[in-house]
Parts: sequence; C-alpha cells; structure tokens
Amino acid sequence: MAKKAMEKGLARYFYPWPLVLVTCAAEKGTPNIITIGASSVCSSAPPTVGIAVAPSRYSHQLILDTGEFGVNIPDRSQLHESDFCGTISGRNCDKFAEMGLTVMPSREITVPLIAECPVNLECRVVQNVPLGSHDWIIGEIVAAHVDENCLQGQHLDTGALDPIICYWQEYWSSGEKLENWHYVR
Amino acid sequence: MAKKAMEKGLARYFYPWPLVLVTCAAEKGTPNIITIGASSVCSSAPPTVGIAVAPSRYSHQLILDTGEFGVNIPDRSQLHESDFCGTISGRNCDKFAEMGLTVMPSREITVPLIAECPVNLECRVVQNVPLGSHDWIIGEIVAAHVDENCLQGQHLDTGALDPIICYWQEYWSSGEKLENWHYVR
Repeated sequence: MAKKAMEKGLARYFYPWPLVLVTCAAEKGTPNIITIGASSVCSSAPPTVGIAVAPSRYSHQLILDTGEFGVNIPDRSQLHESDFCGTISGRNCDKFAEMGLTVMPSREITVPLIAECPVNLECRVVQNVPLGSHDWIIGEIVAAHVDENCLQGQHLDTGALDPIICYWQEYWSSGEKLENWHYVR
Repeated sequence: MAKKAMEKGLARYFYPWPLVLVTCAAEKGTPNIITIGASSVCSSAPPTVGIAVAPSRYSHQLILDTGEFGVNIPDRSQLHESDFCGTISGRNCDKFAEMGLTVMPSREITVPLIAECPVNLECRVVQNVPLGSHDWIIGEIVAAHVDENCLQGQHLDTGALDPIICYWQEYWSSGEKLENWHYVR
C-alpha cells in the first residue's frame, strides 16, 4: 500500500466525525444552536464530553458565560436543520424559530435542549482548553434524555438512531452493525 | 416524542464514536497499539487530536513518557485486529507481531505507525487533561499519511475509506453519502 505524505490542513484527514447540535443561551436570552463537527466523550467517570468551538463564535461566549451547554444528537431527518445551524450566527437569527425546532427544558441546567433530537445531554463546563483556532470545552454530563423509541431497557436501540456522520465537508449516514465489542474473546 | 431520563453511565448515550488505533512506544522498546473509541479533532490550527486514555493503561505511560503517539484509522478489514488490540495489555503482548501488522516508520516522531491502516497521523502531545477515569491527551498532528488509493488530489476519497464506527459496545460500518456541508446555501 503506497502512502502519500500530506502537507496542509492535516486535521481534515481525521474521520469519521459525529455531528451534534450544541444548545446554549444568554441568561434570560433567546437560546441558540451551533452545529459542532468535532466532539467526543472524554471520560466515563465522571462522564464528560468535549466540543471544539472557535472563540469568535457567538455560542463560545454564551457557553463560557453560563458554564452550561446541551449536546443534542440529530438523526437523518434533521440533516437540513443541522446544516443550517452551522451556516449562520445566532447573533442575528433565532434558529429554533427559523427551523421550527421545539425548545425542551433541561432538568439540571438552565440551557434548553432540542426536543426533536432523539438524545439530549445536559452538560456543565469543567474545563476549557484554548488551542488556537478552537477551544476544546469539556463539560460533565449531568443528565441525559433518550427518545423512548430509541431505547431497549437502559441501552440505546442502535438500529433506531440513524445519526449523521461527517467526513471533512461531507455528511454520511450510519451503515450496519458489524459486531459487538470484544467479539474476539 | 416521549423522552426518558437516564440515570447511570451517561457517557454511553453519546454516539457515534470513531474507532482509531493509537500507536506508542517505550524509548527503544517494542511498539504498542491501543484501541481508542473516544477521540476527536480538537482544533484545526494548529491541527490537534484528542484521545481518552485510562491512566492505568500501559499505553498511557508510554505516551506521556515520549510525548508522542500515532493515530491510525483502520478500515473494516481490520475489525478483528482493532477489537483484539482493545482487549489485551501491551505489557504482555507484542500486538504488531500477534496480529501480523506491519510497522511503518514515522517521519516527524519516533513512534511507528500501522502500515495497513489507510490513514496515519503523527502526533506530539501538547496538553494532558486529567478528568478521572481517563485523561484527555491532546496531540498536535505534525504529519499525515494517506493511502494513495484513498485520495482524490489532496482530499480523502471518502467512498474508499470504509471506517469502523462505534456505538457503546457495538461496531458499525459507515453508510452512504447524504450531502456536502452547507448544502442549504
């Protein structure tokens, strides 16, 4: 297998990326939505999730001001809304209203969630790591909500989720289940 | 849509996760491979990637000792190897030899890469963020290598990549391309 050494924009060669919609809000202000391509669980105990947010973004200020954000995981039926929320600033647009999305109250934080997304995670900021183009903002997951149609007991019904996966500049669907973890044993 | 509030193990409700194989090595030692489910780009300039590694893992010590690691992105043909490398400690096993994987020299770091993986990222540690069960180790991507069969010019040929995607406890394939980013405009 011949390999080519790449020279520029090296972050674009990482894949796949999960697509999430992060909610945030000014105190007593209109809630906002920002589409985030770079995010991940960072630890399981405490359960934390990190998101990459450019310091110039309106949501960056809101998240650090309140110390709270929501991670809302869309499915394929919200592809248009997900793309839209990544193209326009919440300084000039009420994205919930513009996209017809439903504000869902949180339980542990003040920032609302997106009712239409099958999974919502309420997060409280525990660390902010400035890196340059983006800060890596880490939040502890203090509550989680899952659509009952996407659950089998306490577990996600993965076949029902239909998330959006990203490569650099492209949205993809999820495929099919291959194996359980640790099938080699 | 009725939602259920989940009580325990909240990190497992985040999805999807990219699956990567992280390489590391003791100075002049046998290189090791650790399967990582929680990883993400953290910034684009400088290009950085974060990985969640439990402090008890053999690889954790190697990565912090050398300040270097490789991110190797497997495809579906390496599912068995990927699962195996997550089940056993490198303290007692030469995983390259055991799995018949080929050591590929790096260009900018001393830690080797996995030749069979279509994409390899050479990373130098810039921050370590201890969170509890896992440290979030952030590395700057200082070199990237891509299989020429997976390239169209400087861009990834996404249709050729066939990565492994994870949900909590499950491996999945990638699906199909839906849209380009920002198709709403």
